[in-house]
Amino acid sequence: MNPITYSENSVSSKLLKFLEKNYPLSKWVFLVDDQTHILCYEKILSSNFYDISIEIIQVETGEENKSIEQSIQLWETFTEYGFSKNTVLIVIGGGVLCDLGAFVASTYKRGIPYVLVPTTLLAMVDASIGGKCGVNFLQYKNQIGLFSECKRIFIDDIFLKTLPEKELICGLAEMLKHALIADYNFWKKIRKNELHNISIKQIKEATQIKMKIVLQDPYEKNVRKILNFGHTFAHAIEHLFLNENCNLSHGEAVLWGMVYELQLSVKHLKMPKKEAKEVIQFIKQYTSIPNWTSEQIKEIIIAMRQDKKNNTTNINFTLLSKIGQATFDCFLSEIEILEVFQEVNQSIK
Amino acid sequence: MNPITYSENSVSSKLLKFLEKNYPLSKWVFLVDDQTHILCYEKILSSNFYDISIEIIQVETGEENKSIEQSIQLWETFTEYGFSKNTVLIVIGGGVLCDLGAFVASTYKRGIPYVLVPTTLLAMVDASIGGKCGVNFLQYKNQIGLFSECKRIFIDDIFLKTLPEKELICGLAEMLKHALIADYNFWKKIRKNELHNISIKQIKEATQIKMKIVLQDPYEKNVRKILNFGHTFAHAIEHLFLNENCNLSHGEAVLWGMVYELQLSVKHLKMPKKEAKEVIQFIKQYTSIPNWTSEQIKEIIIAMRQDKKNNTTNINFTLLSKIGQATFDCFLSEIEILEVFQEVNQSIK
Repeated sequence: MNPITYSENSVSSKLLKFLEKNYPLSKWVFLVDDQTHILCYEKILSSNFYDISIEIIQVETGEENKSIEQSIQLWETFTEYGFSKNTVLIVIGGGVLCDLGAFVASTYKRGIPYVLVPTTLLAMVDASIGGKCGVNFLQYKNQIGLFSECKRIFIDDIFLKTLPEKELICGLAEMLKHALIADYNFWKKIRKNELHNISIKQIKEATQIKMKIVLQDPYEKNVRKILNFGHTFAHAIEHLFLNENCNLSHGEAVLWGMVYELQLSVKHLKMPKKEAKEVIQFIKQYTSIPNWTSEQIKEIIIAMRQDKKNNTTNINFTLLSKIGQATFDCFLSEIEILEVFQEVNQSIK
Repeated sequence: MNPITYSENSVSSKLLKFLEKNYPLSKWVFLVDDQTHILCYEKILSSNFYDISIEIIQVETGEENKSIEQSIQLWETFTEYGFSKNTVLIVIGGGVLCDLGAFVASTYKRGIPYVLVPTTLLAMVDASIGGKCGVNFLQYKNQIGLFSECKRIFIDDIFLKTLPEKELICGLAEMLKHALIADYNFWKKIRKNELHNISIKQIKEATQIKMKIVLQDPYEKNVRKILNFGHTFAHAIEHLFLNENCNLSHGEAVLWGMVYELQLSVKHLKMPKKEAKEVIQFIKQYTSIPNWTSEQIKEIIIAMRQDKKNNTTNINFTLLSKIGQATFDCFLSEIEILEVFQEVNQSIK
């Protein structure tokens, strides 16, 4: 499922070869957003696709466009242009566009083939991997979606070079998460590494941690849930920001979420305090944890109730017993969550 | 996949037992439409569900409500009521509601469990079987959808008794199709049978023909396409009616579609004329073929271009070489389709 091609500065030729081999008679349609449109021309089309007939569809960027309304617009365009199962969609974008493009492609005419070319570090190491796709709905993250398989993921470091620091930090957040839940040695490497020196080798290592987990449990019945470490808090915090029409990157929310869930891990799974502290120190190099108002905390907890992994009464977390070892299905009450908010708030004063 | 429980007049107790065994801690939510709401009370809830906490969601009936707008309303309701993966949706309805309910359930939070209780003959022998779900979009049938698996299908003849003749004919259309593509003996039985005497045994036989095909090719890469016999025409005709805001049942469209595709089978696959004539005679007991205007024919052919199974230039059909033997991926040009319209028009004058 979801085979990956890794490359350094050769995505254009690799993609062309793949399309020529697998979809010689299909219509090739590129889905881009206002940020990746130029990237798509410069890094992909200009080098090898000269004289080849393709179509480009551009949508607006941003989490708020990962919506059912945007999906409807795309389905309309697909219908209007007469796309069929002989159309292959090539998504050139970050996590938002990968999630949206995959959702629209896999529900149009019960699924047309699609390929992902992640352009951000976060999309490379996380969003494009594992077949989850979907859109936000009523301010809830990924509320509508499904599991689906793309035909190929192309990961190339060519896109990293122009990425702003903020975007690199977002990707680092998910790389760190992969290390914390499954690989102590990878944590040691990440810890030492410079943000601007992330290599294709490290990206490969991060994706392979995720792939290994996904292959064991593609539909998230059990072990795949460990990939949600940090995400119960993160999704609820993102919901709050969506609600308030404020911008927040997924990566930053995950960094914050991990701080709270590390604290919960110490309390409920006896994670060594020292380890948790080291990780929190590392995270604090890249972000500062907000000091939430009690009104905001209330809203975040209400949003957690909508999390896809809950049972009927308690909130579901993945917690760590130590770095590299995660336990899923830790159900905690709202009071226990409130406590951890107060503790973290206290510690950042 | 999609296991079926067949029963005679005992769906209520069978469904209850299934839910108690498999979803004891889940919220049980019934999805009904304005026609099946009463049926649901009378035939299911009143007998065994006394004192059991359930929820009922009612939507409006009809092909025009198998839409993305209706899906959005349902996703909103699901979110508002806090449905989670610990909610099981029980769809009590005909083909339209089964398709819609399955689509909404399998995309909400990347899929919550659902059960189908088809209440029409057509839904029993066809719509509920095989995991296709979806909604119409821009007047195109099932344009948005996916393959998904329901947890159980309950087929009980209790719902047949009050079904109007028109509904029985719709179901008969798909039973006939199953016979024509795969089972000569089943055609002989159907031919003799009285419309009002359709038994659970015959329904089982029809569903098993379909199940056998679906199991060989769940995602319609090859042999499953034979189930589309009659449907290339049928879907395009339904598109025309949706466009003109006219009512047309799927079954009737399929009966018409089969007449055209039988004619194509004689021309292009040398199906014996005598056999085709016998089947067309049989069909004409239940419906009259409209005499289309040339404007309508043009619109039907344009709609065919949107069919999910086409290649880039020609229209894809399943045709018969004889009764019980079908060939998929027969690509015909628009001119060949136009000819068959003229021939059938001629023959009904």
